[in-house]
Amino acid sequence: MTGSDPAPAVTGTDEHLSPRITLEGPLVLQSGVSLSPVTIAYQTYGALNADKSNTILICHALTMDQYVAGPHPSTDKRGWWDALVGPGKVIDTNRFYVVCSNVLGGCMGSTGPKEINPETGQPYGLQFPVITIRDMVQAQARLLEQLGIDKVFCVTGGSMGAMQALEWAHRFPDRITAAVPIAGSYRHSAQNIAFHEVGRQAIIADPEWRQGNYLEEGTTPHRGLAVARMAAHITYLSEPSLHRKFGRKLQDRDSPTYGFDADFQVESYLRHQGYTFVDRFDANSYLYITRAMDYFDLAEESSGQLANAFKDSPVRFCLISFTSDWLFPTAESREIVHALNANAAKVSFVEIETDKGHDAFLLDEPEFHGTLRGFIEGAATSVGLGSANKETSSD
Amino acid sequence: MTGSDPAPAVTGTDEHLSPRITLEGPLVLQSGVSLSPVTIAYQTYGALNADKSNTILICHALTMDQYVAGPHPSTDKRGWWDALVGPGKVIDTNRFYVVCSNVLGGCMGSTGPKEINPETGQPYGLQFPVITIRDMVQAQARLLEQLGIDKVFCVTGGSMGAMQALEWAHRFPDRITAAVPIAGSYRHSAQNIAFHEVGRQAIIADPEWRQGNYLEEGTTPHRGLAVARMAAHITYLSEPSLHRKFGRKLQDRDSPTYGFDADFQVESYLRHQGYTFVDRFDANSYLYITRAMDYFDLAEESSGQLANAFKDSPVRFCLISFTSDWLFPTAESREIVHALNANAAKVSFVEIETDKGHDAFLLDEPEFHGTLRGFIEGAATSVGLGSANKETSSD
Repeated sequence: MTGSDPAPAVTGTDEHLSPRITLEGPLVLQSGVSLSPVTIAYQTYGALNADKSNTILICHALTMDQYVAGPHPSTDKRGWWDALVGPGKVIDTNRFYVVCSNVLGGCMGSTGPKEINPETGQPYGLQFPVITIRDMVQAQARLLEQLGIDKVFCVTGGSMGAMQALEWAHRFPDRITAAVPIAGSYRHSAQNIAFHEVGRQAIIADPEWRQGNYLEEGTTPHRGLAVARMAAHITYLSEPSLHRKFGRKLQDRDSPTYGFDADFQVESYLRHQGYTFVDRFDANSYLYITRAMDYFDLAEESSGQLANAFKDSPVRFCLISFTSDWLFPTAESREIVHALNANAAKVSFVEIETDKGHDAFLLDEPEFHGTLRGFIEGAATSVGLGSANKETSSD
Repeated sequence: MTGSDPAPAVTGTDEHLSPRITLEGPLVLQSGVSLSPVTIAYQTYGALNADKSNTILICHALTMDQYVAGPHPSTDKRGWWDALVGPGKVIDTNRFYVVCSNVLGGCMGSTGPKEINPETGQPYGLQFPVITIRDMVQAQARLLEQLGIDKVFCVTGGSMGAMQALEWAHRFPDRITAAVPIAGSYRHSAQNIAFHEVGRQAIIADPEWRQGNYLEEGTTPHRGLAVARMAAHITYLSEPSLHRKFGRKLQDRDSPTYGFDADFQVESYLRHQGYTFVDRFDANSYLYITRAMDYFDLAEESSGQLANAFKDSPVRFCLISFTSDWLFPTAESREIVHALNANAAKVSFVEIETDKGHDAFLLDEPEFHGTLRGFIEGAATSVGLGSANKETSSD
């Protein structure tokens, strides 16, 4: 399903199946640090049209990557938005050219703490500079330039992907037509910073982390990373969904063992989540990306007024939130809607009723998919991108 | 403020300032294990009256202990309910004889994993049997018997203390007049089991835990225990209270450092919570007590029907919950109220409006204190325990 690439890709290391592009010149980060070279790994789906107007940029969440659809190269699963992205699907790759890049700081081929620091010949580890959501978006913008794409039809993503979509609308309002931030916020809350800090402390507490130098030293802080993942995973779900799925059901036994085995199914599930995560994710990347989310605050960046972040924005917005999402609750999307309304921006907002919590943006939620399909359709028509085949035939 | 003890106390080890009593005969646990000897450390406040009818038994929460009021021997703080317990206070030690014992499995002088296993001469560690809320309550009941107290006027406590108060009402309805379960539940939810499991995994992941034998080996799993505490601490608060207290405020700096220091006040606060906790709590006790809470399910114990747990109960109940408590939400107290109503039990129920989350039961919440004062007053009058002085003078 990977489409043709309009720009030559730099060949990456063997472990990465994605094409990679090295940005021309250094990337000046929000911290002031100049980072060079910066390589970005990305996937594309569908084909770029003749006037290069049909790009949908998908921004991934904390622990996701550029493998949006189709088989994932290092797990036995499909891409994280495979339900949404593909021929004839909500994000229809017969019509749109879908691009998703691994974020700066990530661990699936883009420059990040596990890649080699050219100054030392060793993995960056904690020598890697702290990055922000703005830095991730700057790297994406540079990638798209080098791919010859001046204007993006739509930027979308859930969770940290929503933060990136908002940053795109804030920084590059003239380079995107539409933005769909899903289950996101304009700033990371105190509670969310606190949960991230627990995860980071769990990693740092693991002696195998070796002050961040575990790659050189041949160790893996898998226990710390697993604990971080377990704590985070609870926040992605909701109490009602945990209750519905597991309740207090015992795991493969009729009565409690009165011990510390995973007596309850929910414990067994959580341990599985923790210990499979460590096979596919880098502990230092987890530190850097959680930190980037913590620093995100579009209001603070805009003289304390979120409305200033979207002054006279020409972008069409669609905000989507989920009723049972307590990590990025609806109220935070609503604040963004108010800020956009204050600018008389084009904004639609849908709160989807579901008990599936934050992770609902990854799941098969018909009302969510219908909302996204409808918005994309309308926005596409407004810029002359035509309409879906089945709608054309019914005209 | 410690009152006179009606029964001779066994002298404990020097580090424990509380009197301790060794139960006569073994304690047969819910798991079937017979544990012996069992020693219980306890504090008392006020004086037992002539007919031994004025006892209020306070049951402590997961990380609390028997030091309810007055100075705590190993921290520089006052007891955890010092705001409520004392002369003239809501739980008036001029009128009532207050007893609080360290739970079985605890680490402040009662028999638990850090005490010496007489069979080996070494600390129990993981040789300690898994205990339950029922076991804790059985131990309390035996303690009270040995103190010569046949009937308790009121059993109360918050969180795990509420579980014990409910277990008392279930097991010994004729031995208590009133029960006040605060911010509790009749069973631990899947989400709460999940959070506990994260804490346990954090402790077990710490190599200094040494398979539970850290005391013999002279190590301390302080990093794992601190991470467990940090994760748990978030659940004791609410997002609005974290936002009000910390928001995104930086710690002693004007701009972010773009590093992994505790840039945000909430991080600094959380680290402090984690690293002060390890000075006063035993990691294995944390494993055992969280496990006891996980196993608690009064409905399951009563043929799946919570109402059966309180059949024809003569106990006067007052349930108290807090609006922003997402660990033990109001809905769970309400289920208990429904079960009590189905038995035509005497029950009052108050949900207190507060943004302080689960920890509100430890804080100065005037409506909560007023509710508790009013209920105790009414229940005391109903059993001829007289009324408070100021009310007597206004008669």
